[in-house]
Amino acid sequence: MPKTTAEAKEVRRDAILEAAQRTFAQYGYEGATVARLEQATGLSRGGIFNYFPTKDDLFLALAERDAERIGALWLEHGYEDVLRYIDESEHEWLGVYLEIGRRLRTDEDFRERWRQRAPEVDRRLAEDVRRLQEEGELRDDVDVETLGRFLGLVADGIAMNRAAGFPTPPFEDLLLLVGDAIGGPARLRTRPRRSA
Amino acid sequence: MPKTTAEAKEVRRDAILEAAQRTFAQYGYEGATVARLEQATGLSRGGIFNYFPTKDDLFLALAERDAERIGALWLEHGYEDVLRYIDESEHEWLGVYLEIGRRLRTDEDFRERWRQRAPEVDRRLAEDVRRLQEEGELRDDVDVETLGRFLGLVADGIAMNRAAGFPTPPFEDLLLLVGDAIGGPARLRTRPRRSA
Repeated sequence: MPKTTAEAKEVRRDAILEAAQRTFAQYGYEGATVARLEQATGLSRGGIFNYFPTKDDLFLALAERDAERIGALWLEHGYEDVLRYIDESEHEWLGVYLEIGRRLRTDEDFRERWRQRAPEVDRRLAEDVRRLQEEGELRDDVDVETLGRFLGLVADGIAMNRAAGFPTPPFEDLLLLVGDAIGGPARLRTRPRRSA
Repeated sequence: MPKTTAEAKEVRRDAILEAAQRTFAQYGYEGATVARLEQATGLSRGGIFNYFPTKDDLFLALAERDAERIGALWLEHGYEDVLRYIDESEHEWLGVYLEIGRRLRTDEDFRERWRQRAPEVDRRLAEDVRRLQEEGELRDDVDVETLGRFLGLVADGIAMNRAAGFPTPPFEDLLLLVGDAIGGPARLRTRPRRSA
């Protein structure tokens, strides 16, 4: 298949992202020099920047791919599988995950670009949480955004601790604790309810 | 008071840590060069390294001070105040907090040194959680370490999201969710209990 087809381009693009992920994970954003990216991808600077005009574009694409993957996992398999995925992740991947947070914190341009993306997956996640709330699977005395943010910060906290080499709670206990935090009326109906 | 008294030394040491904290927060560990540390502290390289022989020692001391402060806050005012402290923190401080995690992740020597410290505050925290569990304030179907780790990872997740500029759940909702996760038998007694 000639390299110019859209499909071949997509394959090449994915291969660059995979190699870049390893490089960013190992060296951090600043340490992922063009020389190291060239070595990891087996491509020249021009070959890489043909797909991603700047290192920032490459990193942003990686961050977006990451967010899409986790979002898709959540939608297709549920939050439990997101937690399991993060809890079982290699340090390497977690390094990139956390590096995204660090760049959002320290780099205003990156933060602005990240905010401007409006991924379909985020919208679908919010819908999913709302549906679960309506079905009584999730508590409804706090709003959808709050539940989503809480689940997100638990996932981030696990990532941070695992990446630092600290023990995280046994997975079954984690599910029990998080389940009791977000549990719906079926679980909570015997307790006094609070208005949102 | 002559500069050689222990008290004056302690004051100077604290002043160096404060200035270093700002520098690490603003530039990250690698970016906190000796020149920047000199400028922030108003001391020469020799003046700083008289107190902290290496940059690593300085950073470790900062990380320890941070852990002690949060531990003391927890012991004296409870976990709610820890969450509030982190939730209300300035980005600047959170940057250092997260940088500690990053160095634990990427720097084996630092990780080893961190593990070798055995702070009294951690021991007292574990005791405190155990006491709360015995008093029925915390659930007892998961063990003390698990509860402590869960509370720690929630705090880390909040820090990470706030530092990245993302919204965290409204504080009262957060307390409600975390409270339901860790709540003791008094809250949970109507639900089927699981063995640990």
